[in-house]
Amino acid sequence: MKKLNIGLFGFGVVGEGIYKVLEEKPQLNAVIKKIVIKDPNKPRNAPQDLFSSNPDDILEDDDINVVVELISDADAAYTIIKKSFGKQKHVVSANKKLIADHHQELLELQHANNVSFLYEASVCGSVPIIRNLEEYFDNDLLNYVSGIVNGTTNYILTKMANENQSYQDALSSAQESGFAEADPTADVEGFDAASKISIVTLHAFGKKIKAEEVIRKGITSLQVEDFKYAQEKGATIKLIAKSQIDIKTGEITSTVLPTFVSLHKTIALVNNEYNGVLIGSSLADEQFLYGKGAGRFPTASAVLSDISALKYDYKYAIRKYENTQSGVFNQSGKIRVYIGFKQADDTVFKILDEVEERYQSKDYNHIIGIIDIEKLKNKDIIENDNLSIIAFE
Amino acid sequence: MKKLNIGLFGFGVVGEGIYKVLEEKPQLNAVIKKIVIKDPNKPRNAPQDLFSSNPDDILEDDDINVVVELISDADAAYTIIKKSFGKQKHVVSANKKLIADHHQELLELQHANNVSFLYEASVCGSVPIIRNLEEYFDNDLLNYVSGIVNGTTNYILTKMANENQSYQDALSSAQESGFAEADPTADVEGFDAASKISIVTLHAFGKKIKAEEVIRKGITSLQVEDFKYAQEKGATIKLIAKSQIDIKTGEITSTVLPTFVSLHKTIALVNNEYNGVLIGSSLADEQFLYGKGAGRFPTASAVLSDISALKYDYKYAIRKYENTQSGVFNQSGKIRVYIGFKQADDTVFKILDEVEERYQSKDYNHIIGIIDIEKLKNKDIIENDNLSIIAFE
Repeated sequence: MKKLNIGLFGFGVVGEGIYKVLEEKPQLNAVIKKIVIKDPNKPRNAPQDLFSSNPDDILEDDDINVVVELISDADAAYTIIKKSFGKQKHVVSANKKLIADHHQELLELQHANNVSFLYEASVCGSVPIIRNLEEYFDNDLLNYVSGIVNGTTNYILTKMANENQSYQDALSSAQESGFAEADPTADVEGFDAASKISIVTLHAFGKKIKAEEVIRKGITSLQVEDFKYAQEKGATIKLIAKSQIDIKTGEITSTVLPTFVSLHKTIALVNNEYNGVLIGSSLADEQFLYGKGAGRFPTASAVLSDISALKYDYKYAIRKYENTQSGVFNQSGKIRVYIGFKQADDTVFKILDEVEERYQSKDYNHIIGIIDIEKLKNKDIIENDNLSIIAFE
Repeated sequence: MKKLNIGLFGFGVVGEGIYKVLEEKPQLNAVIKKIVIKDPNKPRNAPQDLFSSNPDDILEDDDINVVVELISDADAAYTIIKKSFGKQKHVVSANKKLIADHHQELLELQHANNVSFLYEASVCGSVPIIRNLEEYFDNDLLNYVSGIVNGTTNYILTKMANENQSYQDALSSAQESGFAEADPTADVEGFDAASKISIVTLHAFGKKIKAEEVIRKGITSLQVEDFKYAQEKGATIKLIAKSQIDIKTGEITSTVLPTFVSLHKTIALVNNEYNGVLIGSSLADEQFLYGKGAGRFPTASAVLSDISALKYDYKYAIRKYENTQSGVFNQSGKIRVYIGFKQADDTVFKILDEVEERYQSKDYNHIIGIIDIEKLKNKDIIENDNLSIIAFE
């Protein structure tokens, strides 16, 4: 079994978790040789001589064969990963935005340099979604991958559903509990989920959709009344990231949308900071993977499993990845949506191609009907904070 | 990508499913070259010249590099697998009893002959439990694997819970719907689940427990009153197969027992013929895998994923499997149980080490308390049909 000498970039909660586990489990045969951090003077829970603020202390050390990249600055991380590949070092990363943005380039670079690039922790923390798509659902029979991939929004939505809290109150409570950041934009606007479904889509269908091309609506405009409606229908509202393929046309629809989920469905049980992903294949019916999506130990666990896999030279094969990596995305198809709003303006009723239901009251209104997927690319509709747009499953 | 020429033993629903998929998906690059069946004269949904009743037509054909074994006769299957290894053929099997009974021998034989032996379909159909234990949870941080691994009993228990049916009525209904066999013993007495948890335990902890050493109680003595009690407590009853390790002592407890499961728990959502497995690790909290546990397509799906994996020479590494494969099993520890019974005899009250609750009524009684795990090896207790023994989670 190969001995791994690790260079760690970043020593936040996840980095410290990994350091601790590797210290306590010598049988994993992996040691952290150097940790590069920004501020070398900050007190740390590890021996001082492990730390440095000079990236070359890792990059130029030929003894170090694995780089674990856990810093938040995506640009710096990008440079580090590229340099690491150039020095024939394997890389483990949890940086979903960076990966979604440079996915193909990084995969090609790892290949060219004959090293491994693993990033299970970038999607759903400890839930082994990428590994399952890679290793188990690697034949051509997959229909969709769909689920809750962002713990922050799921925590907020759970509060809104169970405690009738407003979005603002639920956000504050998430921030107090450490489940939402001071600037929650990336999470609550669905950018984080879009990055994740972009990464997942490449592993599921071998095609790359850019995160910004995912049809995306966040949770910021959801109202208490929307949850009341959901409740009446025996449902709740979840932020669902989904990629599905039309087997006949090869067209893929990738969306991140607030979605009504029946309380009888497994996915409705995914509450608080948990994540859960459904994998639908022509053969196996639906598979469901569930676990903690974020946090110190779940993320550390995924990183450790990747580290562990490097010991036997594991590499994502991405067997479905063809020479033509671009797919046909979000071009046709219709979905059924609910649109909630306080005050109707002229445009609201023009959004839907076909109106099935209208509900009006003093305080709140909604319409339900069919919308062309193309229309959901229109920023005037999707970024209109006065509209709660919620898809039906 | 290696071309696979498959020799198929058995052409029941699963075999036919695999044949169909491979016919329809030439991109899988695997063809069935010969199918050996018992009765060559029975009409089949495949070209007649594919069939033979002579095993040597597969075993002696050097062109065939993969044997897929899907016959019910465990002894015949055992011979076929050993001969296939001897002819340097990879083997895919779904035969849990056979695998549980000869697990170590077959693993050693595949190794000696430098071929692969894959059997994902043997546990939980399409749910990739073995692959996840092998590939993702392959470090030493696992605490337990626990779940619903038998679709027949889960179908019956779901009927009993949701429709207040007696065991006999629910069994009949399962038999009518094709979810239980005419002789349901292997399923309802927990033998099937014991084989599966035996296979899982080797992949989870690297130690082999024989199926007959798993502490096992089936569902045949469960009464309507037991479900009434569960309901009052916001719970239901599931047949849970579980292996857990005491990290300090290395001792493993492997059980198959009817168990009260709170309706708030994810596992309680696993109904009818579905299977669901929880994987608990020190780091990642709990992971949950869920899907169809049996049936034509789910089983075919798992077999196909194994076939697919053979194209890149995949092999279970069983990284935790040491030279000393035998573990310390079921030797100490206490669990909390409920014992329901219609008529008390002298022995009932002597079973528990510590009685916490007693309930008596005209029709039905129960006691709740702590029992030494050792006592559950006593056949007089565990096979007493007058006692409903149900563990608490």
